Amino acid sequence: MVAHERGLGIRYWMTTGNEVDLSVGETIQMMAEDPEVHTIMAYAESVKDGEQFTKALDAARSEKKPVIFMKVGRSEVGAAAANSHTASLAGEDVIYDEVLRAHGAYRVKSTEEMLDIAYATRAKTYPTGKNLGVVTISGGGGVLIADAAADEGLTVGPMPQDTQDELKKLVPFASPMNPVDVTAQFFNDLSIVPKFTDLMLSRGGYDALIGFWTTVPGSPILSKPLLESLKKAMKGYDDKLFINCMVANEDIVKTYENAGFLCIEDPTRAVVAMSALMFFGEEFKDKHFVNDFNKKDFVVHIPNKKLNEVDCSQILTNFGLPIVTSTLIRNKDELKSIFNEDNNKYVMKIVSPDIQHKTDVGGVKLNIGNIDNAIKSYEEIHLNIKNNAPNAVIDGVMISPMVKGGIECILGAKIDPVFGPIVMFGLGGIYAEVMKDIAFAEAPISHKKAEKMILSLKGKDLFYGARGQSSINIEALKEIIVNLSNFIAEKSNQIDQVVMNPLLVSDKQVIALDALIVTK
Amino acid sequence: MVAHERGLGIRYWMTTGNEVDLSVGETIQMMAEDPEVHTIMAYAESVKDGEQFTKALDAARSEKKPVIFMKVGRSEVGAAAANSHTASLAGEDVIYDEVLRAHGAYRVKSTEEMLDIAYATRAKTYPTGKNLGVVTISGGGGVLIADAAADEGLTVGPMPQDTQDELKKLVPFASPMNPVDVTAQFFNDLSIVPKFTDLMLSRGGYDALIGFWTTVPGSPILSKPLLESLKKAMKGYDDKLFINCMVANEDIVKTYENAGFLCIEDPTRAVVAMSALMFFGEEFKDKHFVNDFNKKDFVVHIPNKKLNEVDCSQILTNFGLPIVTSTLIRNKDELKSIFNEDNNKYVMKIVSPDIQHKTDVGGVKLNIGNIDNAIKSYEEIHLNIKNNAPNAVIDGVMISPMVKGGIECILGAKIDPVFGPIVMFGLGGIYAEVMKDIAFAEAPISHKKAEKMILSLKGKDLFYGARGQSSINIEALKEIIVNLSNFIAEKSNQIDQVVMNPLLVSDKQVIALDALIVTK
Repeated sequence: MVAHERGLGIRYWMTTGNEVDLSVGETIQMMAEDPEVHTIMAYAESVKDGEQFTKALDAARSEKKPVIFMKVGRSEVGAAAANSHTASLAGEDVIYDEVLRAHGAYRVKSTEEMLDIAYATRAKTYPTGKNLGVVTISGGGGVLIADAAADEGLTVGPMPQDTQDELKKLVPFASPMNPVDVTAQFFNDLSIVPKFTDLMLSRGGYDALIGFWTTVPGSPILSKPLLESLKKAMKGYDDKLFINCMVANEDIVKTYENAGFLCIEDPTRAVVAMSALMFFGEEFKDKHFVNDFNKKDFVVHIPNKKLNEVDCSQILTNFGLPIVTSTLIRNKDELKSIFNEDNNKYVMKIVSPDIQHKTDVGGVKLNIGNIDNAIKSYEEIHLNIKNNAPNAVIDGVMISPMVKGGIECILGAKIDPVFGPIVMFGLGGIYAEVMKDIAFAEAPISHKKAEKMILSLKGKDLFYGARGQSSINIEALKEIIVNLSNFIAEKSNQIDQVVMNPLLVSDKQVIALDALIVTK
Repeated sequence: MVAHERGLGIRYWMTTGNEVDLSVGETIQMMAEDPEVHTIMAYAESVKDGEQFTKALDAARSEKKPVIFMKVGRSEVGAAAANSHTASLAGEDVIYDEVLRAHGAYRVKSTEEMLDIAYATRAKTYPTGKNLGVVTISGGGGVLIADAAADEGLTVGPMPQDTQDELKKLVPFASPMNPVDVTAQFFNDLSIVPKFTDLMLSRGGYDALIGFWTTVPGSPILSKPLLESLKKAMKGYDDKLFINCMVANEDIVKTYENAGFLCIEDPTRAVVAMSALMFFGEEFKDKHFVNDFNKKDFVVHIPNKKLNEVDCSQILTNFGLPIVTSTLIRNKDELKSIFNEDNNKYVMKIVSPDIQHKTDVGGVKLNIGNIDNAIKSYEEIHLNIKNNAPNAVIDGVMISPMVKGGIECILGAKIDPVFGPIVMFGLGGIYAEVMKDIAFAEAPISHKKAEKMILSLKGKDLFYGARGQSSINIEALKEIIVNLSNFIAEKSNQIDQVVMNPLLVSDKQVIALDALIVTK
């Protein structure tokens, strides 16, 4: 009903309930294939069949049909409420976030946002970039729109200097940069609207425009002339989207809409809708249909037993995933071969399938620099285990060089119950863990996607040389994320989870100090 | 005009323009004192007279008049646009954020949000807590509201178990936890609405309720009975705020409003408005008028010269601010007195007003453990300076024990051009700096405010024992933040900036490794 008030034509309204029969994926697939549907709005508390669902989203995207998706149950209480009334397990919300985005669906948080965006799709124009031009008769309105655009990650780029000079000649006290403030001068001379707008479209390089007109379009005297001015300005730019922020009655709004303009009263809502259309514009570019995986062939056998650290480390190393070299020692004599080459410090750890928290039972020794120290540590560890975990089965003691320096990251992979193999990468260390700065992607991924994951982190600047540090080896990092994504995808029938933590990343190397594989 | 459509009565509409004459602060002050004004909406691109402004906000708060404030120019482009059209320097946006909140004004980002909240203040009921009860006829609506409430930091606490059992007896397939889903059963028996609502109000301990009724209130048959049910339920709870999310025509909405209910169609917008009213409820409690500073008297003299690290360190230490003890050495013999007591490692740094980046010129040596090493380091530093900065005036070499462990923080203070002395505290280290996790407050502050600053950090869990680490000494940390706030407030005529970075915070101690004072 609220949708009808907005003048949205609704072809299907399908409620899947508990999805015993028809799933949300199947419903979207059907709509994607129906030529009379051009926009798909969906609401769900969970998705059951991840594969069907993502296939349907891909189908809608390849038909260039926007899917506006509200997945609720984002919060703890919300998720509990969702479970209680549809009895479906929602899965992790962050993964929905990523899957929706990756398959070109735009996730909304509120009904209003959903309807605004659905309304805005009526123009069927999806800007292919994120550079927004703002033309306004109120300085404050321009500032407000610029703020909202920044919140949405849009660019409000400046006009070229020579064009700014030209605008200044037209209206000396105008702000010509962008937001372009035509000022109240426009009341005296409406012709400056098409002049300004035309210069913005032809020279500003903007992907779309928002005009802020307050109540002017509602004025009996100015409404028509303004519309005529805008129509004139837009001649030849049918492919550009123009949203008007204006206060006027329904009939006037209709005349603007019939002339091809979108009208959204509140400027912030206009920007949010614009941002969604720009998202779709990016998604509807052809590149998304190209599969750019670059999979290497690694042949890796996973033994059918409980894996200890050394096993995990070897399996992953064989798959092109760098883990610090570790040696499994079963008697002191074997230590000698380690300590005749370098000046490294070493770390020694007990290896036992029965010991989870090695430090708690005295099973870890750090900073071992020579053979005497190594033998002493070896003996102490065994004594500690004898005292603290007398029944543990001991595989041996693992010794590996200590590595320092670099940014502490975490790289992992797991099987999601809905969406299957997932790779995750984020900042590590305790502070980063508290901040939950982690990116997810369905595995396997391309190198490009790996880069997107890195760039999506809040702390991404760390990788690109924040505060005078040198930039890390991004290519090596991408390669490793891709490799782990291939590993989990290939071994998804045997493996539940992989964690490489910490993964140290620097300009010189990318290397994990610890790795764990959980088999099914 | 949009406000009028919402039925908001507007007594004053004041535009201060470039504020040559009347400031936004003076305008708010006037409205705070006018008994016919009960809600103040303000829009500003900057504030000029911080003192007048905060005084006006305090006046409005003490009159229990909500101030809904839109400060634009939050983004870089927005701020530039604001400057260009009012030629006022906006100052740092994060400081506005803090000052507005600290003086009880609610900052909004959009016009719609401003009008929604202004509308919601017509009930003149400000809940004194943040526990929200949600009653709904749609499971999905409840989930949506719970999600939005979580976004706003509200609690959607569960009903007591015995009351849940009681509700279950009334409607066996209801979800009685909260959101309380009365389900479609309510179409058969409207009397369950007052029963449910009454139990929520009397036993749930909620500070306010939101009801989600979709189009039911718009139905010719159900509209009146639902309203009567709700009125019955609210009898005796006039002090509780109740917002209805409902789709109905204007006339019906008016009948609900006249009965004391607020009506906001979109559930997310209802939650946002509720959250603002709860903010005001908290602010309008009497405690805010009590000044609970606990200022100690430190007598500190700041010499009228360029301060080196040792000066800074001594000045701050005298003010109860712990900096690692450092000794200024002017010849090698003085080193001996340092190295006969403990097993500490020491750090040595050149002290010169002419050298900013000590590491770059070889002016820093770490991990000095004994006198021989110390003498060698001392000589090397002098040699390096001779080669790399031959013209620098040398005050000496500073030696101090190395301190490790604890959470790396940053504590600072500065004079803001608009709001005067400001203290700031945040997480340190390079990752935290990239994340800009910093809290600000006008100085001086109380211990309570210091705690609020700590709790406002995104990484706050670190301080309270995240991941099995022990909780830090919060009392000591609060004391130090308070002391620095007193220092900047007292010395604001002499000092521009103070930085204590890193400040190491652990369960055992709070200590800065470095401190810098910039005098005017």
